[in-house]
Amino acid sequence: MSDGNGNWTRRNFLETLGAVGGATAVYEAMTAMGLIRIPEAFAADAPCPQPPNAGASVVILGAGIAGLTAAYEMSRAGWKVTLLEAQERIGGRNFTVRQSTVIHEIDDDGKRVDQTCKFDTGLYLNAGPGRIPYHHTAVLRYCRELKVALEVYEMSSSANFFQNDAAFNEKREPRRRIENDTRGYIAELLAKVVNRGALDQELSPNDKAALLSLLTQFGTLDVGRYYAYSGSQRSGYSVQPAIVTPGREEKPLAFQQLLKSQFWLHRFYQPEDYEWQRTLFQPVGGMDGIVEGFKKVIPADVIQKERQVRKIEITDKGVTVTHWKSGTEEDRQTTYADWCISTIPLPLLRGITSNFNDDYRTAVASVSFAPTCKVGWQAERRFWEDDDEIYGGISYINHNITQMWYPSNDYFTQKGTLTGAYNYEKRALVMGNMTPDERLALAYEGALRMHPQFRKDVDIKKGITIAWQNVPYQRGGWADWQPEQDEAYRRLLNPDRRFFVAGDQMSYLPGWQEGAIRSACYVMNRISRPAALREEIRTIDRAPDSQRRTRGWGEDVEDDE
Amino acid sequence: MSDGNGNWTRRNFLETLGAVGGATAVYEAMTAMGLIRIPEAFAADAPCPQPPNAGASVVILGAGIAGLTAAYEMSRAGWKVTLLEAQERIGGRNFTVRQSTVIHEIDDDGKRVDQTCKFDTGLYLNAGPGRIPYHHTAVLRYCRELKVALEVYEMSSSANFFQNDAAFNEKREPRRRIENDTRGYIAELLAKVVNRGALDQELSPNDKAALLSLLTQFGTLDVGRYYAYSGSQRSGYSVQPAIVTPGREEKPLAFQQLLKSQFWLHRFYQPEDYEWQRTLFQPVGGMDGIVEGFKKVIPADVIQKERQVRKIEITDKGVTVTHWKSGTEEDRQTTYADWCISTIPLPLLRGITSNFNDDYRTAVASVSFAPTCKVGWQAERRFWEDDDEIYGGISYINHNITQMWYPSNDYFTQKGTLTGAYNYEKRALVMGNMTPDERLALAYEGALRMHPQFRKDVDIKKGITIAWQNVPYQRGGWADWQPEQDEAYRRLLNPDRRFFVAGDQMSYLPGWQEGAIRSACYVMNRISRPAALREEIRTIDRAPDSQRRTRGWGEDVEDDE
Repeated sequence: MSDGNGNWTRRNFLETLGAVGGATAVYEAMTAMGLIRIPEAFAADAPCPQPPNAGASVVILGAGIAGLTAAYEMSRAGWKVTLLEAQERIGGRNFTVRQSTVIHEIDDDGKRVDQTCKFDTGLYLNAGPGRIPYHHTAVLRYCRELKVALEVYEMSSSANFFQNDAAFNEKREPRRRIENDTRGYIAELLAKVVNRGALDQELSPNDKAALLSLLTQFGTLDVGRYYAYSGSQRSGYSVQPAIVTPGREEKPLAFQQLLKSQFWLHRFYQPEDYEWQRTLFQPVGGMDGIVEGFKKVIPADVIQKERQVRKIEITDKGVTVTHWKSGTEEDRQTTYADWCISTIPLPLLRGITSNFNDDYRTAVASVSFAPTCKVGWQAERRFWEDDDEIYGGISYINHNITQMWYPSNDYFTQKGTLTGAYNYEKRALVMGNMTPDERLALAYEGALRMHPQFRKDVDIKKGITIAWQNVPYQRGGWADWQPEQDEAYRRLLNPDRRFFVAGDQMSYLPGWQEGAIRSACYVMNRISRPAALREEIRTIDRAPDSQRRTRGWGEDVEDDE
Repeated sequence: MSDGNGNWTRRNFLETLGAVGGATAVYEAMTAMGLIRIPEAFAADAPCPQPPNAGASVVILGAGIAGLTAAYEMSRAGWKVTLLEAQERIGGRNFTVRQSTVIHEIDDDGKRVDQTCKFDTGLYLNAGPGRIPYHHTAVLRYCRELKVALEVYEMSSSANFFQNDAAFNEKREPRRRIENDTRGYIAELLAKVVNRGALDQELSPNDKAALLSLLTQFGTLDVGRYYAYSGSQRSGYSVQPAIVTPGREEKPLAFQQLLKSQFWLHRFYQPEDYEWQRTLFQPVGGMDGIVEGFKKVIPADVIQKERQVRKIEITDKGVTVTHWKSGTEEDRQTTYADWCISTIPLPLLRGITSNFNDDYRTAVASVSFAPTCKVGWQAERRFWEDDDEIYGGISYINHNITQMWYPSNDYFTQKGTLTGAYNYEKRALVMGNMTPDERLALAYEGALRMHPQFRKDVDIKKGITIAWQNVPYQRGGWADWQPEQDEAYRRLLNPDRRFFVAGDQMSYLPGWQEGAIRSACYVMNRISRPAALREEIRTIDRAPDSQRRTRGWGEDVEDDE
């Protein structure tokens, strides 16, 4: 609306824009109009903490990727750094399990449950993050700097399976068939209505001709048969082309069966989403190669393990942290520093005695962590390669396990590990409430629906499982932000006096190491640069959308289970 | 048509089927009805030549992948084997170029043109085949057996570019935008007509609901806005999500611009075609790792290099091959063997003096080889990684170079090589008729349209190029079969007395090493097994479709250039 004289006020403009384009449009316009000043910090690709005033100190809580990044950069820049970690190991959710690794959990009754990994030497499972997208430049830069060798993580192979008992006669079907037949039928239907003239209002004759040409390639239509789809080589072959035979292409799956299978509600298109698009990477030998890399460059006296934080006292001059030997009432110590950066998961920070300001306390208390489980299998034979021609990628299934990852490393060797479950929300809660043995039995059952070879090639006793919501000092996979929690997120971007929270929980990339590193950079920049420190974030469009950033952007049938 | 009494004769049935379903349907039906007996040989995954009668011998012509396979297997099985190779090196089109490698060509005037590769140590270019699909099981099996280490070949990254001066203001656009926006618009259009009821005859209400749900995920439609497509995260971000900003998604490309760009006629969907679907592999260090592998296991006295075959005389008992030192009239020798397997490209075999039977000679003479060129660049800096976030994959362009391959190896290092052109047909003829310097100038011009960094980071003098049609003893990239040449192909599947032709030229996978190996296996099986030898191939549905198997199945705008 204008002001009546035909002039737009800034406010009117933004209100109208909001009505038409939503909050994002308003936010973008405000940014463009200079109404929101975005501190340089978030945009900066490189963390570059300035050298502090002589003797300035920082205490960092939690030695996950964010804490390690801050400890490394600030030590290097001349700060006096203390990094307190509650667990016996560093890395947080960056956790690679191999022979003799112990997974600790705490069950519903508060009882500790330990599992020891029985994999053969050389085999491993990434129990936390397992992949690095090509656009996560901060992680990739640290891998380079810390000399962490990377190899391609294969997100999807056309030989991966989708299985749903409700369709395809319960048969697993390869991705290539579902992908191709769906494109074919969609193209055929659209070509049909275009040829009938049903879109003549929308499309000029030239557009129609171009669109039909596009659809022909897009969906491998048969122009000579009125743009019908009748299958194509993209689905693969029931008889491979060879010497005497030209091969026999797979027949198309029935459209009805495709619709009935609801494959698109089972994460099938996740590899299309930005976070999972090719090219992705993984560290050679396990994701904890990054942790090992940081460990080598952080001075030995900086990290203190098994130190559980019990009390945080903030003043305008600094922060005093009281910590004990983890899980005991013993060896009480205090650490005072000019600044404190906490990467403790917000639901756990909430339980620590502190003198947070009320608004800050409220914001901290509003965040929960999401449950998520994984299962790892050792296979004595890479049957998915030998029998099923699967090299990496993920199979999806309408079962509690949700998905199965095939290893993107050591192809063509004898043994290998599979990620036999990776689930979310209700499915993760159900699985997490089981004992490890029960979880393995459940996951084994799901695996058998796609791979009968499990009976012979996988020893259930060598399986291992993690329910992150049960892991002490973690208690979940990631901060479970809803977009409408913008006020809490905004508040936590600003410090409570000398106290900042950081980690992927304070990023628009929850559950991703990139978010952890960028959050650390953001906080370091604010602490190190007087101008950035004075900058209060006053407006935030929306909080992170944790579900979409961690599970993919598509709707998922498990939401309704 | 029936016989008038309501009964179908077999012939009537097949004729009707042919009219409705085409030749393939007839072929498949005949196979199913047992009317075509397909020898076991082609289906056998493993080459397994039987031990010969005492002292049986074979002379193999050409030490490409087919010849090497035959030489290895038959030596192992106890045959007396001679392998004659005209060039100074073995491997044929499996040819990796690195520092000091010399590429020989012969120009239009018959003059020899040599180029010496000036790459730094450790850099290489696969001048011939560069990738191995996961379903090429014979190649993969030999890689395992010969201990050739493999790594993933990345066929496409969502960061790869498409560039066409006719659209997008001449800007290169990343694959993720073109891919996503196209899916979005297609889904939006189809959802629109479904909601208007235009497909009510074809779709039940349940189907419609399921289809709309599918389209929503398929094309990231906005259900709340009447299934409109207005862009999505799949296109990537103009501002990355970080700490203070949720990021800014790329706006959708205009539908008109997408249609105008004709991207789908520029190989954009080639990665969807079966031969190029994920997961693909490449040998670590260069494709000629396979050649080196064979070399190690073939007895030293089997291979004779620089032996040009001049005469072939076949009898019912054996074959006499007369050969000279290549390119000279010197050192004439004859080799007699019980059998001859020739992998000499058919157009070159045609020019060799022989006593072929007339029908065999006619068949040999009917096959031509396809021109194809590649260009290799050394870059002093991996600018495509550092600046453009491209890790492997292929960019496509409407320029003579057709495509640019980024290396799928040694990511994150300093230097690297690019395949700066890989073209076909007219484009390859045009390029092949140029001098190497002219070709490099042309390819440099094409490269600059996508990567201005070439100016600084690529020294045109370190470029190298190959026009396979100019390479002596090769004279092309692959046999250029048309499907309707079924009679010639059929004839050549059968021997002329004791003489067989083999190689990828005698397979439904022309241009692929898998075809070469399977062809060698087929011939070895026929020679080694009395039953298979008696089997004459009497019917063939169609000859290989070389264009589609080598360039992808889509139509290509360059066809019309």
